[in-house]
Amino acid sequence: MSKVGLLSILEASEGEYVSGEEISRLLGVSRTAVWKQIRKLEAEGYVVEAVPRLGYKLTGKPARLSLQDLLPKLHTKRFGRQIRILDVVTSTQDEVRTMAEQGAPEGTLVIAEQQTSGRGRMGRNWVSPLGKGIWMSLLLRPPVPLPLTPQLTLLAAVALSRAIARIIPELSIGIKWPNDLLVGGRKISGILLESAAEDERLRYIVAGLGISVNLDEKDYPDELLPKAISLKMASGREVNRSDLIASVLEEFEGLYDLYLEQGFAPIRSLWEARSVTLGHVTQLNTPQGSVTGIPRGLDEMGGLRVELADGSWRTIYSAEIRDEAASS
Amino acid sequence: MSKVGLLSILEASEGEYVSGEEISRLLGVSRTAVWKQIRKLEAEGYVVEAVPRLGYKLTGKPARLSLQDLLPKLHTKRFGRQIRILDVVTSTQDEVRTMAEQGAPEGTLVIAEQQTSGRGRMGRNWVSPLGKGIWMSLLLRPPVPLPLTPQLTLLAAVALSRAIARIIPELSIGIKWPNDLLVGGRKISGILLESAAEDERLRYIVAGLGISVNLDEKDYPDELLPKAISLKMASGREVNRSDLIASVLEEFEGLYDLYLEQGFAPIRSLWEARSVTLGHVTQLNTPQGSVTGIPRGLDEMGGLRVELADGSWRTIYSAEIRDEAASS
Repeated sequence: MSKVGLLSILEASEGEYVSGEEISRLLGVSRTAVWKQIRKLEAEGYVVEAVPRLGYKLTGKPARLSLQDLLPKLHTKRFGRQIRILDVVTSTQDEVRTMAEQGAPEGTLVIAEQQTSGRGRMGRNWVSPLGKGIWMSLLLRPPVPLPLTPQLTLLAAVALSRAIARIIPELSIGIKWPNDLLVGGRKISGILLESAAEDERLRYIVAGLGISVNLDEKDYPDELLPKAISLKMASGREVNRSDLIASVLEEFEGLYDLYLEQGFAPIRSLWEARSVTLGHVTQLNTPQGSVTGIPRGLDEMGGLRVELADGSWRTIYSAEIRDEAASS
Repeated sequence: MSKVGLLSILEASEGEYVSGEEISRLLGVSRTAVWKQIRKLEAEGYVVEAVPRLGYKLTGKPARLSLQDLLPKLHTKRFGRQIRILDVVTSTQDEVRTMAEQGAPEGTLVIAEQQTSGRGRMGRNWVSPLGKGIWMSLLLRPPVPLPLTPQLTLLAAVALSRAIARIIPELSIGIKWPNDLLVGGRKISGILLESAAEDERLRYIVAGLGISVNLDEKDYPDELLPKAISLKMASGREVNRSDLIASVLEEFEGLYDLYLEQGFAPIRSLWEARSVTLGHVTQLNTPQGSVTGIPRGLDEMGGLRVELADGSWRTIYSAEIRDEAASS
């Protein structure tokens, strides 16, 4: 049974109720099949009223992003000036990576309404349902050597947190090293910078930026709910996605230009000011083993300076922080 | 006119001469077309004797790499234990990158007899004709953070120079920073490490290793000859490619295990001892501009420590060295 068939019946009845019996007759499927498809539509953001004896009525559709809506809000020079809005993709990262290999310019952006294989750190899945979040990937071609790439991971976290704060000033957002944004210890965004390099030379970075904007509790698997939250759940209000996309691109471009001009120092200060990782005993699982200590700040490369119990210091470039420690 | 048709005629005549007239009759093409195809075969490593009035005779075929020949020589634990030998590929890098994305294990190796789009640094072409060199790509999955990746670029150069020295001890090989191997100022190998990372975490490296083994002067474009040389041209003798491949994999695996166990310090010493870059006034073109000074050594990250004219120091992580400076 196709979604399109059901949608066209509901849309054709123009706000009137259509009985499940009639729908099942028109589409030649069982009433149970109709009910299952209605649930699927709801999961995608359609609002369907169901009244016993009367039937079903379509009362709301998922909001769609459009260039007509987004472009007038965009005040950037390069970021988002080459833009594609797609409906469903496996991952916006894969789309932009392909474009990068074909020579797409810096600032190229792909936004998707839905990702079927959204990726988080360490190959984890990333929940990205239709029309409820910002799932996008931005192409960067910074003229910096490969060892400095992690600085851009930190920059991205600062840019997103500032962009969200512009739209929802009352929200208190903390950065968990290196680039998770947390509200009350729960994750509201996912940032993943995939970089391609030749020897010590960075070819490009595809910055995957995911923000859980208008997701409701029911959009998350149960086991994720203690760890994840959307802007809507955290602030109690719907957020216009176009406004937020424009804000992200502006903040990102501004900080990026600052970085290319003045280096990492200003980014480092902004990151440290927003960090929820610094000052707390933290367990860091590095590829070489586990380290427990108190992160005190960043070094000039972007590594995390950690004070150990014996008073010695370690600089950590790559590690996972246990969730318990981060939300303390 | 197909190569296969001509080859089968020459092979069928079992060391006897076949006249150009007969070949042109059998294949239904002009004698000029026959002659052109003969030249193409020669360029691929076939040896064809041409005697006026008698015609053509096949007296030699290009040596082919085979697993039967290579595997008994291989004494590695992981490197080259998953191996594919291909005839013609666009680039062995592309082959291994695809395998890496599909989860291939560390040490996976692809060797090609010929590359049609062999890549060098900065997207330059790399001359890789049929059967005359070693064009191969090795998959690494080192548990090191992204900023340390350039150390593996330096390690690869040390491994290749030691592997070649084992086979041709009389050859004096210098390393031009970061990873060009030079004999008398002319390049004998090309190393290109393409890395894929997520945030500060290295996912994998595809190490492209090209060695100009048995190329002759005529295999190079004229403009490359002053800058490039093969092992055969440099040493005056043909080198068995399987011996050299086995030697490269053993040296690489040995140094790689040493690196994972003891860190960069021993690799750094080995690199510095073989460098032709240190101690000479050098112009380094970085993404941020040109720097002229005397490289004095590597720092613990793998950056090049350069002493400037005013006595100050700079650490360079990414730059091109002008050829003139390198061959001085």
